[in-house]
Amino acid sequence: MMIEWKKSYPGVWNGTVGTPELTLTGVSGKRPSDRLNQLPETACPEHKIQFDTMGKYTVLRMELDHEERVFGGGLLFKQVITENQVYHLRVDHYAGVDSGRTHAPVPFVVTSNGIGIFCNTPEQVDLYIRTAHRKEDKAKICEHDRAGDKDWSCYNAPYYIEIAVASPNVEFILFSGENLKDCVARFNLYCGGGFIPPKWGLGLWHRTNMTMDENDVQSVVEEYKKHHFPLSVIGLEPGWQSGSYPCTYDWSARFPNAERMIRNFLKDGVRVNLWENPCISEKSSVYEKLYPYSGSHLQWCGIVPDYNIPEVRNILKEHHRKSHFSIGVSGYKLDESDGYDKWLCPDHAEFPSGINGFVFRNLCGLLFQRITFEIYRENNQRTYGLTRSTNGGSVGFPYIIYNDRYDFKEFVTGLCSCGFTGTLWCPEVRGAQTAQEWVRRFQLLAISPMLLLNAWANDATPWMFPEVENTIREIVQLRESLQPYFYTAFAKYHFEGIPPYRSLFMDYGMFLAENRQHSGDLDDTANPYQEVQSSDIKDQFMFGDCLMAAPLEPGENSRKVIFPPGKWFDFHTGKQIVENGGVIELTCDDLSPMPLFAPDGAVIPVKENGALHVRKFGNLPGKFMLYDDDGETFDYESGKYSWKEIEA
Amino acid sequence: MMIEWKKSYPGVWNGTVGTPELTLTGVSGKRPSDRLNQLPETACPEHKIQFDTMGKYTVLRMELDHEERVFGGGLLFKQVITENQVYHLRVDHYAGVDSGRTHAPVPFVVTSNGIGIFCNTPEQVDLYIRTAHRKEDKAKICEHDRAGDKDWSCYNAPYYIEIAVASPNVEFILFSGENLKDCVARFNLYCGGGFIPPKWGLGLWHRTNMTMDENDVQSVVEEYKKHHFPLSVIGLEPGWQSGSYPCTYDWSARFPNAERMIRNFLKDGVRVNLWENPCISEKSSVYEKLYPYSGSHLQWCGIVPDYNIPEVRNILKEHHRKSHFSIGVSGYKLDESDGYDKWLCPDHAEFPSGINGFVFRNLCGLLFQRITFEIYRENNQRTYGLTRSTNGGSVGFPYIIYNDRYDFKEFVTGLCSCGFTGTLWCPEVRGAQTAQEWVRRFQLLAISPMLLLNAWANDATPWMFPEVENTIREIVQLRESLQPYFYTAFAKYHFEGIPPYRSLFMDYGMFLAENRQHSGDLDDTANPYQEVQSSDIKDQFMFGDCLMAAPLEPGENSRKVIFPPGKWFDFHTGKQIVENGGVIELTCDDLSPMPLFAPDGAVIPVKENGALHVRKFGNLPGKFMLYDDDGETFDYESGKYSWKEIEA
Repeated sequence: MMIEWKKSYPGVWNGTVGTPELTLTGVSGKRPSDRLNQLPETACPEHKIQFDTMGKYTVLRMELDHEERVFGGGLLFKQVITENQVYHLRVDHYAGVDSGRTHAPVPFVVTSNGIGIFCNTPEQVDLYIRTAHRKEDKAKICEHDRAGDKDWSCYNAPYYIEIAVASPNVEFILFSGENLKDCVARFNLYCGGGFIPPKWGLGLWHRTNMTMDENDVQSVVEEYKKHHFPLSVIGLEPGWQSGSYPCTYDWSARFPNAERMIRNFLKDGVRVNLWENPCISEKSSVYEKLYPYSGSHLQWCGIVPDYNIPEVRNILKEHHRKSHFSIGVSGYKLDESDGYDKWLCPDHAEFPSGINGFVFRNLCGLLFQRITFEIYRENNQRTYGLTRSTNGGSVGFPYIIYNDRYDFKEFVTGLCSCGFTGTLWCPEVRGAQTAQEWVRRFQLLAISPMLLLNAWANDATPWMFPEVENTIREIVQLRESLQPYFYTAFAKYHFEGIPPYRSLFMDYGMFLAENRQHSGDLDDTANPYQEVQSSDIKDQFMFGDCLMAAPLEPGENSRKVIFPPGKWFDFHTGKQIVENGGVIELTCDDLSPMPLFAPDGAVIPVKENGALHVRKFGNLPGKFMLYDDDGETFDYESGKYSWKEIEA
Repeated sequence: MMIEWKKSYPGVWNGTVGTPELTLTGVSGKRPSDRLNQLPETACPEHKIQFDTMGKYTVLRMELDHEERVFGGGLLFKQVITENQVYHLRVDHYAGVDSGRTHAPVPFVVTSNGIGIFCNTPEQVDLYIRTAHRKEDKAKICEHDRAGDKDWSCYNAPYYIEIAVASPNVEFILFSGENLKDCVARFNLYCGGGFIPPKWGLGLWHRTNMTMDENDVQSVVEEYKKHHFPLSVIGLEPGWQSGSYPCTYDWSARFPNAERMIRNFLKDGVRVNLWENPCISEKSSVYEKLYPYSGSHLQWCGIVPDYNIPEVRNILKEHHRKSHFSIGVSGYKLDESDGYDKWLCPDHAEFPSGINGFVFRNLCGLLFQRITFEIYRENNQRTYGLTRSTNGGSVGFPYIIYNDRYDFKEFVTGLCSCGFTGTLWCPEVRGAQTAQEWVRRFQLLAISPMLLLNAWANDATPWMFPEVENTIREIVQLRESLQPYFYTAFAKYHFEGIPPYRSLFMDYGMFLAENRQHSGDLDDTANPYQEVQSSDIKDQFMFGDCLMAAPLEPGENSRKVIFPPGKWFDFHTGKQIVENGGVIELTCDDLSPMPLFAPDGAVIPVKENGALHVRKFGNLPGKFMLYDDDGETFDYESGKYSWKEIEA
């Protein structure tokens, strides 16, 4: 099958099979950023790509170079390089295995050669990465005998990626960047560019126990003042509503003076964020209106309105505007759009707009964000919140993905992988076994997209381990001192498409010498197919313009840190760590600061006691372009912002 | 949609939607057992069942009673009761989560009320167990507020099971038994009845390192003699072939005198079993013949013949007969039909018979068993082997499922769950960190469907921990002494459909008082939805007529044992343990024997020094019907067998 690739922007081509009705970008309601037109032209790699119709599937196939690596394919928690994997993408709670079932199964892959493929569809997408050989490839493959030939390997060139979409109607979008990072940036810009959070969003968040009433919540805010922790947002969990699981979206009698409470909090600079999920109770004031537009199946005993219908979105926007926005609510946490599978309606559920449960779930988080975001957008006020699922096209929605797991390694790998698909991932703190664990978790939070203490099911506070209260306060201060740095990172996300959180591979390419053997070490349980263990980097990442984090795990007092080529410096002490990249073993104390490193020439603005200082690392020339705007409206879209060049 | 249920046997009704071409039972080539006609009639529960066509799905829905529990849905490793789960069934390597991706995703579920539903199709089947509420159920559901109402629960009556098949053409088969066990038995008999292994199959198996040549293998057999371990089967791993991964199915030069070796082994009572996988090398003598019948994609660089084509099966049978069977090979280990997903061809692969990769994979293990089994069947000789995937309809194929994992808990839970879907699961030993672990693993093996030491990737031997060599020998002797007991269990599998390995629930019903609360304990990470932890029993099981095993885990010196109502006795000492069921905490030494228990009235034949002894437990009257036949042919099918009543 031949399809025509039509150039839409420099380095971006659209190829359509059949007549797709729903696309992810269409559903998001976002338009590509004009910035795309200013980017240099690149060559179209269309000659590498072939299409086939195979039964119910539309199949795209692309040959990869021998050392070409693939990234993306959704939010991953166990690895960054998606070598030789199969992902059956679908929105689901991540259950401990990177199988394609994840909170953000974005059907976008990007290679180390800077080629990106986006399947702009909510239908089922399967990714076969460096694993699908066809019969016609046979002549190009050299067979070896596993038992007797040391050249045997479980993986063999040539390598391909095959993408199968279970639909005859698909839009594919092909991106070609000057490198991996540039390709990701073009993808982000095509989806509208990243969001810029309100400045208050980068402060300290606390979500309260779901059973709390107005007085309880006010006490929590008071406690923060008493302990001199600068609380920025208080999040209310299900109990703010008159009913939840399923939800009413109406205020509970537990909050008789919600408006007054919110206004008082605002005087202290504290915003209120509300928890919601998509399942609506018969007790809700919007139940009757939404009933005719809801799907065949219930979730949490509530109806599920079909967000794919504009009238549904309008009803919900109207209600949220009147009941929450108008009294000062700052935003939402959108829960349970992912499922754990069993909590959501089945794939075969029918929705009034004609989509089924599978497609609805792929769109639910995306549209939930759109609905709530648009209320704020239409009132020229920024919002910041959380979502438990998303999909391609959501890069401009100011929502961070979170989940119920609490594995530190996974939290870090999520931060490494999220940037490949226009998503941001949010570790959170909920509790700890030891003071040291509490510190380590806060350290990670302090450099995450959201600094969130989530006490929805307990009564955790930043000072719950008194012996480290000061340490935690210093960590929050570090976050504040880096606020201009973070804010600029988000501006680059918006204007240039550069993700604020990035894998080292995105900034430095495949700089590790691969030195791949023919086959890896045999272990009958851990490695029965003698897979070569690739040089993945999944426990350290870049954030902002140039800082590299190598988080310390709870319980560990040493770790390996990989440095890309060049000189690298300790951010805290300024001391040079390596002369020209390489690997070091870092040892540290229980309360050592989060290991942060800056490359030669790095210039980093730091706010201290209200004044802006500049820190410069190494001897290479360097500068920092500091972004600023009003911090809370969309006026930056009409040019009201500044970029200030900062030198040491 | 109305469909007509047609009674085919007592307690068995067939209901067809559309015109299904392929069915699992059709593919297996087996016919229902005549025995079914002798079973009592039961009432058809058709009034509980409704059908809908929802988009591409055919959906069956059945209401469950409040306390009705569901079992089956394929081989599970983490739980036995499948309460409130969603399984997207597909053949895959089990990856640590019971999600429907498993070695045996048999689309059969059975309830504690004795109702069974079998989707006799290789197409995609999704099971929604006690989780799919519809809008029309709303009036029957009582809503509660999670934050303020202690009656809130994440699960709410009424309960349903919905089964969605992604095809307009499906045969459903409805079973109604007098109880859970009787329903499972009818399902097994409908699929042809269980297999009876050859007597030698119940002995000690050793699989050799894949790099070994003829001399190495002969040395292994000699070592067994020297150490007085009664080896029954020696398994050759990939290296017996001239090429593997992909396979040739032809003898390697490493085995220049394979026939002589096999004949010599047979003189010592040692059988040879050969490893294979479905991917065929260009160096194979059957490559050219099979090439035109192979699928669009390669696996392990080899072609994949379409087993769904009779001519393919004939080519393979002819080759296996000539090259292996005729020189004395006793059977096969059929590997890699499950996948790990990434090792197999994609779902969209096309096969000459018109099926796609998804369906091929669902059938691959089933047909691989059929092909190899039929060679032996046609020569009136029994075989016994291993398969890494199977599906509904395979109950009569003498193959045990295994995998690469090595988690003791999972191994035990596999034995608890396998019997619900006509499958048998095989733990195996490969190695151990300590002598105690070695002992505990062998203890589990000694009461498993196959006593298999799998040294394919190492050089493990039963005597590798010299300090426990005698203990291991005693464990093997225990296995031998129970041989008449095991053999009879398999006869009941064949003649009556009773699985040799069973959950306690199958024999004793839902005997645990459930006492379910409205909601479970909240834990923000481990139990965020406050699920009630059901009284599952997943670490002890019944085997044979009446023995209950409560395996000791490596590293543990005590465990909880649950006893169904009535008196129970220690199998080894004869001592009474409980007066009327209940839970005890068992403590034990490192080398304590495997805890085995017999109920009041149990009569168990035990072979000691070649003579048959009888052990009787308790005072209740009891007897044992001992089965026997020639142990190696299919003459039992024409009546050449005996059932001897044994009393204490």
